[in-house]
Amino acid sequence: MLTFEELIEVKRDGRKHAVEEIERLVHGFVGGEMPDYQMAAWLMAAYLRGLDADETVWLTDAMARSGRTIDLGSVPGTPVDKHSTGGVGDKTTIVLAPLVAACGVPVAKMSGRGLGHTGGTLDKLESIPGFSVVLEPDAFARQVAEVGCAVIAQLDDVDPADKMLYALRDVTATVPSVPLIVGSIISKKVAGGARAILLDVKVGSGAFMKTEEDGRTLARELKRVGEALGRRVRCVLSDMDQPLGMCVGNALEVREAIATLRGEGPADLTTLCVELAARMVAMAGGARDVDAGRVLAAKALGDGDALERFERWVGAQGGDPGVADDTSLLPLSPLERMVVAPSGGSVSGFDAEGVGRAALALGAGRTVKDGPIDRGAGIRLHAKTGDEIAAGDALATVYASSEAAIEDGVGRFLSAVQISEALTPRGPLFQDV
Amino acid sequence: MLTFEELIEVKRDGRKHAVEEIERLVHGFVGGEMPDYQMAAWLMAAYLRGLDADETVWLTDAMARSGRTIDLGSVPGTPVDKHSTGGVGDKTTIVLAPLVAACGVPVAKMSGRGLGHTGGTLDKLESIPGFSVVLEPDAFARQVAEVGCAVIAQLDDVDPADKMLYALRDVTATVPSVPLIVGSIISKKVAGGARAILLDVKVGSGAFMKTEEDGRTLARELKRVGEALGRRVRCVLSDMDQPLGMCVGNALEVREAIATLRGEGPADLTTLCVELAARMVAMAGGARDVDAGRVLAAKALGDGDALERFERWVGAQGGDPGVADDTSLLPLSPLERMVVAPSGGSVSGFDAEGVGRAALALGAGRTVKDGPIDRGAGIRLHAKTGDEIAAGDALATVYASSEAAIEDGVGRFLSAVQISEALTPRGPLFQDV
Repeated sequence: MLTFEELIEVKRDGRKHAVEEIERLVHGFVGGEMPDYQMAAWLMAAYLRGLDADETVWLTDAMARSGRTIDLGSVPGTPVDKHSTGGVGDKTTIVLAPLVAACGVPVAKMSGRGLGHTGGTLDKLESIPGFSVVLEPDAFARQVAEVGCAVIAQLDDVDPADKMLYALRDVTATVPSVPLIVGSIISKKVAGGARAILLDVKVGSGAFMKTEEDGRTLARELKRVGEALGRRVRCVLSDMDQPLGMCVGNALEVREAIATLRGEGPADLTTLCVELAARMVAMAGGARDVDAGRVLAAKALGDGDALERFERWVGAQGGDPGVADDTSLLPLSPLERMVVAPSGGSVSGFDAEGVGRAALALGAGRTVKDGPIDRGAGIRLHAKTGDEIAAGDALATVYASSEAAIEDGVGRFLSAVQISEALTPRGPLFQDV
Repeated sequence: MLTFEELIEVKRDGRKHAVEEIERLVHGFVGGEMPDYQMAAWLMAAYLRGLDADETVWLTDAMARSGRTIDLGSVPGTPVDKHSTGGVGDKTTIVLAPLVAACGVPVAKMSGRGLGHTGGTLDKLESIPGFSVVLEPDAFARQVAEVGCAVIAQLDDVDPADKMLYALRDVTATVPSVPLIVGSIISKKVAGGARAILLDVKVGSGAFMKTEEDGRTLARELKRVGEALGRRVRCVLSDMDQPLGMCVGNALEVREAIATLRGEGPADLTTLCVELAARMVAMAGGARDVDAGRVLAAKALGDGDALERFERWVGAQGGDPGVADDTSLLPLSPLERMVVAPSGGSVSGFDAEGVGRAALALGAGRTVKDGPIDRGAGIRLHAKTGDEIAAGDALATVYASSEAAIEDGVGRFLSAVQISEALTPRGPLFQDV
């Protein structure tokens, strides 16, 4: 049997690992036999030399089996999960979970904590008074069966390899590697018990993948590896060159998700949610095809079924279902400031990551693990790419709890908006892969 | 200022570090600010992306200044050091230190512990009863001034960066990298105070550098970096396709070194020692040129000056000087076995590393740090490459303290000797670079 040092040598020299070698790396690391400095060296070798198609599947499989795996066999139908690679203002999960459930397809989702400029779904949900994201696996499966959907925090003993590897990659400059990203995403989904997975790969200035080509490469790999491990997988690319919807910040995004479930959401968010829901429903067999799924999803938004499902879901996880009818029950930071356009023309684009960093500065996100968060802080946009504006028109309203945070947030927001004299065409919101 | 993660990114992406960045990496690591897993990732990035000419000099300089530096200003003349990249049966230091001192040039050498198949000079010296390799810097400089030579163990607070980096490289498969090897060797020599350094780069089956081309590349870099840091540097390549001399094993090698100092050593070892001594004497200004140095060195071996200097040196470091006249004072393991040629012809070559591993199996080296060592164990060769032999002729005598060690050692030794029917020409022993 090769030593860990010899396993590092294999990848350092650009050779291909055997499946047993990948298993030994993952299990040795999780079991504490392989120290983090050896794994760090292997990760850098894997980053620079790459992992081939087989190795990526083997790595993902070994990671998925590194801890407890969730059994959703007791849930009738095909439990479906959706994963987005992270974007600014991405509240689609909060809309999709009850929307897809209302279409008759169970949604079982475990979600990670957000860190950095894109925010996390758990923090958004926790801005609903009483909402708990901690649920034991049995209760999780039971809620999916009874309510039709559940969204909980990643369990510590599910896919521990991913938690340990991600923490190490984060501090050793080995995050942006396609095989390592694929291993991280798919292993969690496989361990989480979903049979069908829709992957929403964000592309643009606010996403980890900056170009469409990079996004397509990642999407193809996610699909290939997920299918190799026996899951139905479908991918879409969606635009993250500007924030999704009009709101960025936890409670502000929940407000916008509720408006969308009511059929009163912004066009881009509503369209994306209906399209994603249509695909989730179709791939789980809840509709003949995507067109039929789209009809079901649009109907659920229009007739109140989706909103009603949202209330049941929030109630099941301990939250106040009253927020569905009265969003003033959600927190809102006490200070607000209108940000106006310094010149006229049209909004030609956003640095979406810059908008995310402005929200962070306002207090809406964590800059360190377990750091404090101001759930009522954030940004409400009044204009998006392609909108015509005059000098002095409102571009956004920002919310925070201190003047200093307001100043910092406004300054960062203004540097993240581009205004040009010419008209700007809107790009496509999303595309299938 | 860049974070450690950003510094790793620079090298990961194949960009060039600024001098301040290299300083920050080395000092951050030695100071405990940069954890070993981050350094491991940087080392692998440096291994795969390389360090350029400037970066290698900066790294070496930062390492040399990472702890205490030895001042040999009180030693008259130009203190000279010699470093070999490690080979099987390499006892040249034990001959050279008193030989060069006898030629009037001070030798100040700090040496590392041996691990693995090549053995270490310190273990060899410690097989002399009473010999101590631990000396404080002041006493070290004083002994060099008074006796003309001193060989001690690397001090803990001199070049701590090298100790920490080497320990990490050893377990992360990042040892065989030319810039990292150069940094390790030259930083120690610079911190150790020598003004002139002779580098003996071993090439062949028993060395880290397996080909002459690799050896030349390393030698050129060692010279370039040493000179950039203000040292006189000279390099030779020497053959390590077979063990040097006839003995492998600690006390056996001291016996052979004493025989050589007496002018009765094997031809290859004697030739190499005279040639290396000639260069050390010449570069320190103790002779007009290498030819004049060679005359001095040969004379010191012939007239007993070198042996007499050896006695004074051993006595100064607490050892029994009587070993110079009576080598039976040195340990010898109780069991011995003659190894005979299974077929006739000529010795066509050795797997020198295999011979080293046979010596390890006999008990002559450490397989783990601080492990036990049998100082009287080893191999005495009776034939070397090019020698004609008949079936049943003695190839070697092996010494050990247990039958099991004897069996293991004999088996490994036999697999490391090649015998062919044709005559085999001897290759050149060494060449200047």
